[in-house]
Amino acid sequence: MTTITAVDVLDVRFPTSVTADGSDAMNKDGDYSATYVVLRTDDPEQSGYGFTFTIGRGNDLCVAAAEQRARPLLGRDVEDITSDLGGIYRELQSDSQLRWLGPEKGVVHLALAAVMNAVWDLAARRAGLPLWKLLATMTPAELVDAADLRYLSDVLPREEAIGLLTRKAGTREERIAQLEKTGYPSYTTSAGWLGYSDDKLRTLCQEAVDAGYRHVKLKVGGNLEDDVRRCAIAREVIGDDAELMIDANQVWDVPEAIDWVGALAEFKPLWIEEPTSPDDILGHARVRRAVAPIGVATGEHGMNRVLFKQLFQAEAIDYCQLDACRLGSVNEVLAVLFMAAKFGVPVCPHAGGVGLCELVQHLSVFDFVAVSGSLEGRVTEFVDHLHEHFTDPCVVRDGAYVLPTRPGYSARMRDASLAEYAFPDGSYWAGRSL
Amino acid sequence: MTTITAVDVLDVRFPTSVTADGSDAMNKDGDYSATYVVLRTDDPEQSGYGFTFTIGRGNDLCVAAAEQRARPLLGRDVEDITSDLGGIYRELQSDSQLRWLGPEKGVVHLALAAVMNAVWDLAARRAGLPLWKLLATMTPAELVDAADLRYLSDVLPREEAIGLLTRKAGTREERIAQLEKTGYPSYTTSAGWLGYSDDKLRTLCQEAVDAGYRHVKLKVGGNLEDDVRRCAIAREVIGDDAELMIDANQVWDVPEAIDWVGALAEFKPLWIEEPTSPDDILGHARVRRAVAPIGVATGEHGMNRVLFKQLFQAEAIDYCQLDACRLGSVNEVLAVLFMAAKFGVPVCPHAGGVGLCELVQHLSVFDFVAVSGSLEGRVTEFVDHLHEHFTDPCVVRDGAYVLPTRPGYSARMRDASLAEYAFPDGSYWAGRSL
Repeated sequence: MTTITAVDVLDVRFPTSVTADGSDAMNKDGDYSATYVVLRTDDPEQSGYGFTFTIGRGNDLCVAAAEQRARPLLGRDVEDITSDLGGIYRELQSDSQLRWLGPEKGVVHLALAAVMNAVWDLAARRAGLPLWKLLATMTPAELVDAADLRYLSDVLPREEAIGLLTRKAGTREERIAQLEKTGYPSYTTSAGWLGYSDDKLRTLCQEAVDAGYRHVKLKVGGNLEDDVRRCAIAREVIGDDAELMIDANQVWDVPEAIDWVGALAEFKPLWIEEPTSPDDILGHARVRRAVAPIGVATGEHGMNRVLFKQLFQAEAIDYCQLDACRLGSVNEVLAVLFMAAKFGVPVCPHAGGVGLCELVQHLSVFDFVAVSGSLEGRVTEFVDHLHEHFTDPCVVRDGAYVLPTRPGYSARMRDASLAEYAFPDGSYWAGRSL
Repeated sequence: MTTITAVDVLDVRFPTSVTADGSDAMNKDGDYSATYVVLRTDDPEQSGYGFTFTIGRGNDLCVAAAEQRARPLLGRDVEDITSDLGGIYRELQSDSQLRWLGPEKGVVHLALAAVMNAVWDLAARRAGLPLWKLLATMTPAELVDAADLRYLSDVLPREEAIGLLTRKAGTREERIAQLEKTGYPSYTTSAGWLGYSDDKLRTLCQEAVDAGYRHVKLKVGGNLEDDVRRCAIAREVIGDDAELMIDANQVWDVPEAIDWVGALAEFKPLWIEEPTSPDDILGHARVRRAVAPIGVATGEHGMNRVLFKQLFQAEAIDYCQLDACRLGSVNEVLAVLFMAAKFGVPVCPHAGGVGLCELVQHLSVFDFVAVSGSLEGRVTEFVDHLHEHFTDPCVVRDGAYVLPTRPGYSARMRDASLAEYAFPDGSYWAGRSL
């Protein structure tokens, strides 16, 4: 028997605010950070790694919350846990006193994601499979048991979810073979951060095209005049055949969103991302009706499956950008993937930050292989920074994610990176006045 | 000039789980707790007190978050702050790194409420007025400036909010005079906690009737057979003329809620409270259509004004049970009161816990005096415990809140209570193994 003997939770912060990487109209100076969880067992060969993503201050709150969330894992048999991944999720999630602080949202939910991501990583490493493949070996009933379907039975009863997965089960291998050849399509956000100059934008757009990308995303919403100029530059460089996406990071009220997007319509964006409050389901629906045929995308702040259920019910979005750390790990992601498939909404996960690309590649591959069965309208975000801190960084080639092959959820950080960027005592931070 | 010199944040927990006070189908063993904030100034006569409410574990997370939220207040001129209560709210709220952890929900938002509740308390104490009266002295434009209207302009543009308040401004004094005679109507939840025996339920219902209450609320959702028996007891004791409310504390999926409430319809409940996930706007709307004429109530977990906006837009609720600590203090409560008035939905605030009754009495009185102008369909929750820990406890007489007259937001706890219940070092907790 292998037992969980310790849970280490680290506050890791990268000083991205120094270079304006990741800057947008809402988040001008984020320091990309991770609440990083290591599950240790009495077998030194078996550990699990997971994290949630934040942008700096308050990462310590997630660390403290993850320590509380993880407590029931101590002393437990790893086999018991990894053979019932739905059960352990429900157990951790159901602490009623912590639940009051959400429920299922904010710090306690981000912390649940960090801990359960480590549990899923451990399960995949134990199975000797990359996470996507572990999922792809599970039967429809096993997947549905692992998913968090609470509060969803009005749109997705258990039997319907099983039926949806069963229809795709016989052809999983074909789709795996296809992705092994082509990779999973991605787009880049690296070109369009709001803090970059026009020249840098122009250069980066050209580099994206040269690297094989057919989709480029720009941050907007700071100033309309700037947005018009920047969109014109991007469109000019990428040409009319490539897709341009724009992202406002929640800065607008609904009427303002409609007006502003209207003023950028001439650049034919594929989607407007986060036009307003991420909680405003009906607001997104109204924006969507008003700006069509420009699509509406949201999800990186989609707090839980109940929000996504309603985004689907209200026909509020064209693209579902679920987040691997904002949702309660794979268990809740599965529920959103199932609903998206039912409603026919393509899932284009949010990525970037630190480590999100590493995680979502698994989710997108699994979605195609076993849930949606389609690549139509699907592109997964890719941002080219901070990958060097991972032991198993994602690989993007010709604008597509190469299928991960190593066991786990690609969530493990390099020891040297932890030593440097642990906050506040790592070597990078220790010398600075904070 | 008076300056804020220190912000003390205390973790205060009351061992309510021992007696099953507060037990319901979702929260079986809460220890009612407060993240308690004291703003100190260089004038020993001027301090502000505020808190948010939690149910035990994780209160430490809110304490840590409140310390971060409050940091920008240190060294500030009290006059600057209390003369622009909307400005300081927006400043504290807009920390973009902390915002990522919500946004505007969960731990960081509960913490914002704790801090801003203390700021409002300080403002009211400085003015020598109870909070409700401080608000009632503000002009419509001042109130709208203090309110958080971001993301609401699609339903409540600034000018419309001012117009709504202006229509009630000339008659405020009449309504104050009325409430000084009658008090503000309340109902009691003290009788119906799920952990109580049938005999205790019967006795407490009779005591409620004897004390003048015309509304009694029962927790339901554990077991249907028990619920039928308990509703029958309550209805028998209170008679057909009094109102019975039932509260499921989010335990049901939407279809289950509809069936279960249908099975209790014979007891003619006035409302079903929290039938499902508090995030499920469209789910509440569906339940409401199905169970009419039984009303639907929710709000104690209503995370922010954007959720309430949609509950109103979707015609999802008959009663708005906003929470003084879940929303971002008075600033966000004002926005919800304004929208509720526009949509004609009565506000019946959530109370109980620790100190919530002390706070919401001010909000309900102000709502009647300056916003809704109506008592129709309004009753404010009252639960009779833990009031002894406050220096200015609320007073309920003949089933109605007596208007608070002492300066402040009634949020200050007694020093002896803090010494006893501070966690984990207060005298109550120090001797126990936790």
